[in-house]
Amino acid sequence: MQIHNAMLADLATGAAFLGSGGGGDPYYSLLLAEAALARCGAFELVALDTLPDDALVAPCGWIGAPTVSVEKLPSGKEAAAGLRRLEEIMGRKIDAVLPIEIGGGNGLAPFMAAAELGVPVVDCDGMGRAFPESQMAIFNIRGLSACPSVLTAACGSLSVIETENNHTHERIARGLSVALGGIAHMVEYPLSGAQAKEHAIAGSVSAAIAIGAAIREARSSGNDPFEALANALRQTGLYPYCGIIFDGKITDLERETRNGFSIGRVIIDGFGDEGRMEIEFQNENLIARKNGKILTMVPDILTIMDRETADTITTERLKYGQRVKVVAAAAPAMLREEKALRFVGPDAFGFDSDFISVEALNGWEIA
Amino acid sequence: MQIHNAMLADLATGAAFLGSGGGGDPYYSLLLAEAALARCGAFELVALDTLPDDALVAPCGWIGAPTVSVEKLPSGKEAAAGLRRLEEIMGRKIDAVLPIEIGGGNGLAPFMAAAELGVPVVDCDGMGRAFPESQMAIFNIRGLSACPSVLTAACGSLSVIETENNHTHERIARGLSVALGGIAHMVEYPLSGAQAKEHAIAGSVSAAIAIGAAIREARSSGNDPFEALANALRQTGLYPYCGIIFDGKITDLERETRNGFSIGRVIIDGFGDEGRMEIEFQNENLIARKNGKILTMVPDILTIMDRETADTITTERLKYGQRVKVVAAAAPAMLREEKALRFVGPDAFGFDSDFISVEALNGWEIA
Repeated sequence: MQIHNAMLADLATGAAFLGSGGGGDPYYSLLLAEAALARCGAFELVALDTLPDDALVAPCGWIGAPTVSVEKLPSGKEAAAGLRRLEEIMGRKIDAVLPIEIGGGNGLAPFMAAAELGVPVVDCDGMGRAFPESQMAIFNIRGLSACPSVLTAACGSLSVIETENNHTHERIARGLSVALGGIAHMVEYPLSGAQAKEHAIAGSVSAAIAIGAAIREARSSGNDPFEALANALRQTGLYPYCGIIFDGKITDLERETRNGFSIGRVIIDGFGDEGRMEIEFQNENLIARKNGKILTMVPDILTIMDRETADTITTERLKYGQRVKVVAAAAPAMLREEKALRFVGPDAFGFDSDFISVEALNGWEIA
Repeated sequence: MQIHNAMLADLATGAAFLGSGGGGDPYYSLLLAEAALARCGAFELVALDTLPDDALVAPCGWIGAPTVSVEKLPSGKEAAAGLRRLEEIMGRKIDAVLPIEIGGGNGLAPFMAAAELGVPVVDCDGMGRAFPESQMAIFNIRGLSACPSVLTAACGSLSVIETENNHTHERIARGLSVALGGIAHMVEYPLSGAQAKEHAIAGSVSAAIAIGAAIREARSSGNDPFEALANALRQTGLYPYCGIIFDGKITDLERETRNGFSIGRVIIDGFGDEGRMEIEFQNENLIARKNGKILTMVPDILTIMDRETADTITTERLKYGQRVKVVAAAAPAMLREEKALRFVGPDAFGFDSDFISVEALNGWEIA
């Protein structure tokens, strides 16, 4: 499938939602991808199952605190520099790239890379959403190595990491991203085509485009964009349940940049007698409680959106006074497997709860 | 010159003094070097001027907070892993190694590396003492690049850094050392033989051995080890002035591990009416004030020693109640050049003072 300009904007809209508040604001990534498209003519999006088994496939994206990425702009050369170095290390050409996470700006990141290298983007990703830490990728959950990985920064610095333990890799990469000013581009988990086909989350890039298109069409035809979003999510097959879990105004916000992350909580007071929702985040929104009762838990998707436009408000853009709807959606099934929950479930983020699905918590299964 | 076992112990003693309180406690490095010597039979120490111009010479040593190195032991494989990777990157064999700094444990670090690679150690170093930051090496002062550099850690992790700016390199390497647990081995500033001959501080390894031997001989013959130290320093030609600037007991100590450094200050109260000395340190002792008057300023050497045994007490081993003599010595002339002082003078450490030599501050020139 050829990606044209309007599809990039839809992808930005869809990826912003799937980012669960994280993955970075897609605005700069969209501008960069549009500029790359103008230069290179066309992007090719290929289905995961068309990859040859022996292809070399490189997941890529940005690592750091989204709050930093709003002010510290990329040079635009980071992705190509990192991928070229990976080619040197592997002694062969990269055949295709994919987003390490479909969420937020990172859903668009590989398009810049693809333009520079002249390779296609694969219609899949490593998280099915966005997560704050590298070892939360499905590739780690399934036992693959993150290394060799290559971090590149706007200043031209380049670092190669090699370590056997993917948690150590995350710690090293996080330390590097802090040393590099809070944000860096990373190529990690180099995969064979066979590994990508077995483990990547298939169809998530085209799902994000479809979600974005549905919101755009609803807006222009005067329909409810939230209804369009929910329908589009269900049609992807990846995200079978979706609903609005709260509607209100942001009345309190704590957010700090700590250990290379945006960490904090937001309070939303409902209109009328709805009570109050509290959401905790670490780059991404993790858990939502309404009047103390949990309504959504990571890895399910939890996104705060403008209540009129259905624009996603990423965690670094939350502000007092914003009128919002909180939308939750079921995560892809691969993230809800028992082994996956050890890496991306509530426990992995320090919440003392077993995972309960958003459809069970909200009684959507019955509906 | 062949290095035998007793010379390693002398080197440890001399390097501890030249470390100006930093460079890491030499105890573990000595044990590792002795074990390597037992395995490989002999170390070769070669004079700097014997290097062929086209040799590949690799400075190496440990980066991190010395306080951490006391508890977090090396695996012993760090140096060889880093040097082997540098060989891969440069596409050729390393011909010789040298200590990036002669001070503390880092004066011994390249002997382990030499044993593993079967190459000689060059009788020179990159600092003429120890400094806390990578860009304080004479090689940066003289405009050479720190990169490619290779950091390796006890856990087996390896990172390659490439950046054009040596201050950025220090920031990245420091961030990495913190992420790796506070201490890592680094190979940096890969040099040609010609560059080493033009810029390295010649003779510092044999100077450290001579200093250590003088202290050992004074102790065993019942002579004053401090007098022996001063004589030995003068005879090296590298360190022309030396003297005891204070004698007393440690009565206060502030020390914390911050940003990957051991940072703090120590108060020494004099015996009798001598008053009080305050010394500030960042891994290394930087500045000494007696009753408010500066008596020694970085880059001159400032070392706190046990007042009976003349054992150097590195900054991470300072304790309340220790009875000490504070010994100062002139830094090698290359460190006192105007350009060098911009990188290693009082200004570079945030002290609002122009550099004044220890011999001028203490009236030793007249003596």
